[in-house]
Formats: sequence, C-alpha cells, structure tokens
Amino acid sequence: MLHEFDLISQIRRQTRPSPRLTVGIGDDAAVLDWSSRPDCMVTVDMLMEGVDFTLDMATPERIGRKALAVNLSDIAAMAGRPVACVVALALPQSGGLELGQRLTNGLLPLAEEFGVALAGGDTNTWQGPLVLSITVLGEPTGRGPVLRSGARPGDWICVTGPLGGSLLGHHLDFTPRVREAQALHAATTLHSLIDLSDGLAADLGHILEESHVGAVLRAESIPISPAAHEMSRTDGRSPLLHALADGEDFELIFTLAPKDGQKLLADLPAGVAVYHIGEITREPGLGLCHADGRHESLAPLGWKHQFTSR
Amino acid sequence: MLHEFDLISQIRRQTRPSPRLTVGIGDDAAVLDWSSRPDCMVTVDMLMEGVDFTLDMATPERIGRKALAVNLSDIAAMAGRPVACVVALALPQSGGLELGQRLTNGLLPLAEEFGVALAGGDTNTWQGPLVLSITVLGEPTGRGPVLRSGARPGDWICVTGPLGGSLLGHHLDFTPRVREAQALHAATTLHSLIDLSDGLAADLGHILEESHVGAVLRAESIPISPAAHEMSRTDGRSPLLHALADGEDFELIFTLAPKDGQKLLADLPAGVAVYHIGEITREPGLGLCHADGRHESLAPLGWKHQFTSR
Repeated sequence: MLHEFDLISQIRRQTRPSPRLTVGIGDDAAVLDWSSRPDCMVTVDMLMEGVDFTLDMATPERIGRKALAVNLSDIAAMAGRPVACVVALALPQSGGLELGQRLTNGLLPLAEEFGVALAGGDTNTWQGPLVLSITVLGEPTGRGPVLRSGARPGDWICVTGPLGGSLLGHHLDFTPRVREAQALHAATTLHSLIDLSDGLAADLGHILEESHVGAVLRAESIPISPAAHEMSRTDGRSPLLHALADGEDFELIFTLAPKDGQKLLADLPAGVAVYHIGEITREPGLGLCHADGRHESLAPLGWKHQFTSR
Repeated sequence: MLHEFDLISQIRRQTRPSPRLTVGIGDDAAVLDWSSRPDCMVTVDMLMEGVDFTLDMATPERIGRKALAVNLSDIAAMAGRPVACVVALALPQSGGLELGQRLTNGLLPLAEEFGVALAGGDTNTWQGPLVLSITVLGEPTGRGPVLRSGARPGDWICVTGPLGGSLLGHHLDFTPRVREAQALHAATTLHSLIDLSDGLAADLGHILEESHVGAVLRAESIPISPAAHEMSRTDGRSPLLHALADGEDFELIFTLAPKDGQKLLADLPAGVAVYHIGEITREPGLGLCHADGRHESLAPLGWKHQFTSR
C-alpha cells in the first residue's frame, strides 16, 4: 500500500502556528524570524531503538517526548530559550504511520509547553529499527549564553535536583530545566553550566576539562534520588555511586562565586532547587571527600561509546 | 574496546573555525553569530543504509558528501546561503570509528566549498545500519527567501540542467545549486522555486499545490540527461519518463514572468544553465504536451513512502 506521507508537514498544519515560524516549506524546511536575537543556539540528539529505548518498555508517546526533551535540556545547559525544532524520523514500514503519529503526539505537548515551533522534518521508512533525530534552535537571553568553560578555582559547584536511578523512569519523563536555567541566569552570575546527561562525574568532567580546573565533591552533600536507593537494593551498587555515575538525570550543574552562591541559597528563585555539592579547585582532577574525611579520586564515570575493530 | 568518542567535536577542533561559529559546545551544541540576518532557514534530511545507499555501492566519503549536499540543495531551493550544519550519526559498532571518519572526510570538503561551519553533532553507535541525519541552517539573501507558493498563471517554468537517470551516479556526486539559485535570485524576479529531489513531475506538483495553479510541460523542451538515455536502453522506460519521474536530479525548477524569462535567457548569469520547459496555467492539473500535438495528463510521479499495516 502506498501513501504520500509528509507526516511532520501534516502535523504542522494541524497545530497552532508559532509567531516565530515565518513559513514552513514542505516537509523538511522552514524560515524562522530571527530578527530579535543576535545569536542562534543549535543542538542535535539522535535516539535509536534498542540503544536509547525499547518499544516494549516505553510507549511511543514517551519516546517522542524524550527525544525533544533531551534537546531542550541541551538548550537549558546554555541558559537559552528554545525556539523551534526539526524532526527526522526513520520509521519501520510495518506500523510506521501509527508509530510516527504517536511519537509526535508525545512530542507536541512538550513543544507547546516550552513555546517550541515544529519547523520541519524528514519522514522516512525502512525495514530497520526506529530512529529519531531532533535538532532544536534556541536563542540566548539578554545576558548571553552560559558556557562550560567559565568555572574558576574557589567556585561553588551546585546541582538543581536529586541524582541517580534515572533508568527507573525519570529518563523518559523528566522536565528539561529550561525555566530553572533562565531563572538562575537572571538571579545570579553563573560561571559555568551544563546539563547532567552522561552522569554527575562525567558531565562535571566536561566543565573541568573546558575550564582547565579541578573539583572536589562532598559525598554527604550530593542529593540522591529515591530511585538510586531503589536500584541500589537490587544491584548492590551504592546509592552514591548511582548518583555519581548514572546518566540522564537532566538536572543542571553549575558553578558560581561563593558569595553569589550564598546569596542564591538565601533567596532562591521560585520553583528552583539548589544543592551545593562541592568546590572548584586550581589543581586538576576530580575528587570525592567523604564525611569521615576519606578522600578518593573519581575516574571519569559515565557512558562511553563502544566500538569493535572490524 | 572502549573509546571516549566525540567524533564531530574532535573533527571540529581539527578544521578551520568559521567566523560565524561563536562557540562550539561539546559534541552536540553550538552558538552561532546570527546578528547580520533577520531570518534563519532550517532544513533536515536523514539518509539510511539500505534505503538511500548501500555501502557496497558507494564509498563512505561519497555518502557523507551526499548527506550534506541534499541539505544544501534544500537551502538552494529557497535561494538561501547555507551557514552551518549539525550532524547526527548512528554508526555500526563494528568499524564505526573508521566509517565515521570517512563519512566526515567526504562531508568536510563540500562544507568548506560552501562556507558551511560544522557546528555540532551527535555521534552514536549501535548494532543497526548506518543512519546520518544532517540539519543545515541558512540565511536568506537581501532579497529574502523564494518560496514554492508564488507561481502565477502564465509563468514560464524553467529548470537548470538535464534530468533523469540520477541513479547511475549523479545522485551521489551532484553539486547543490546554491550558487545558481543565488545568481538567479539576484538576476531576476523568481516567483517560485524548488529543488528537484523527488522528480520533475512530483516536485513541480509541490509548486502547483502550494501556488494553487496548474502547469503544462512541453515534452520536447525537457532536457534529458545522457544517464536517462543509458538507463532507457536497459529498462525500456523512455528517456522522457526517466526525466519526468526519476528523483534526485538536484537541479532547480523555478517559475517567473514571461518577460523576465525572455530577459534571463538573453543574458544568463555566468555558469548558470536555464531550460524553458513549460507554462503555469490557471487550471489545476499537470499536463504534458508532445511535439505532435498529443496532450496527456501526468499523474503525480515520483518517490512515495511505503507503509504496510501492522
């Protein structure tokens, strides 16, 4: 059975047009009004069936939502505002039409919530597994983007929520910290910022590397999610290790001057949680200090890509 | 064997930075200087192994080049200038590192040729086939974008090169008509414009649909590529049918007022070929007029997505 199939284009016609979307052109292209901002943030993430999700463990709606949410988290990681997205899909031929519709049904409410226009896409079918690749365009706020490279020795290291155990569900249903990043950026002077996708140790490692500094975390200050405790009971890894090494928390980690940290904790923006978990050091490396005074070095922990030789 | 693997980020560090790339952030995000232009064009295309190419029929370098080229063609289709791209890859675990490097080796010279910054990407590995999804951002020229929706009854219909038989090699090695689109946009007043990716009949159909008009093509005026003749000798379909229905010519099709068409043909921009192949009509539908006076209706011809019910 043959279908003329421009899913994204069809859906775009059914949804409320964004004032920023000057014109949508066919399935795959668009022109966006960018006159009010000097910079354009761009980020892309690809999710693949069998790697990032399985269709028997998550509904298509949750997967579609997540595919957009991880990109919104990347815009939050620069304290930007998301503006528009394009969605490329590789759908299985069998049931692909329904699957594509359910994916976008999951994606669209999140897009609406964060004011993101569905600007275009590319809908494909094949005999392979489901692949979604979403690109999000964003704009900095008036204060500009916050980068990974600005951490300074003496900075406080803070996170916006409890960590670990994301696999139990949070990795699908998290709310990207877009509003929190903007609120923090407006309330204080952030030296560096990133979202926690690879895990606390790995993502803090990105800040350390790009800022040419080190860090010491205080174990007892790291907020640990109930899910990390739950996973610990079955796999025997400590809740703290889950909080340090599990990926996909999608909370924010940021650094700022101690005096600004104190002021921030004394007067938090509405709806924003902040946990002060450690300090940036001049000496390179990432250390963990336990309540009993023990100090250990944390090798980079987190997701790695795996290759085998041919 | 484990690798920390941010291929796109590594490659970006090795290539000459673009003046438009304010800052690259990790593997997947970037901030681009967009201060000089009011609009942002965005387009995305995904290529999948076994659907758009096979690795035994094309080198990874040619596939990487094509994945960018099809997006540049989409920017050309709006008479825009490409500015930056992000590249999402699903690489096979076996040999994926080498494959990813060869793909980008094919992509980078084309990016350089057209001044496109590699702004970011997302490198993934899995056990599935190769998937590349590239998003290109572009900017309109001072005259703004040209859309599909502006064709008017009486307009000339023109194409920029011979059509058909792309499968014999052109679909991999074509030069996106970015320069030609800008030259035409500067030289005359284009009413509508699109690139030929789905085939002459199908893509002209997009213009007709969005402009609410019809068209008649003159069979003897349609430029037919040598490859279309070559394929015709083996498959028995006429060279004309190849020119009408084969996809991936990646030439431009555009419409303009007859008086502007006459002036254009009399004084073509350097390096641009223009073939006048028919006229836009008030009556809907797409007709083909043969040299002997026969007139036939062309049902939409071209690529369709295939779905099967579950």
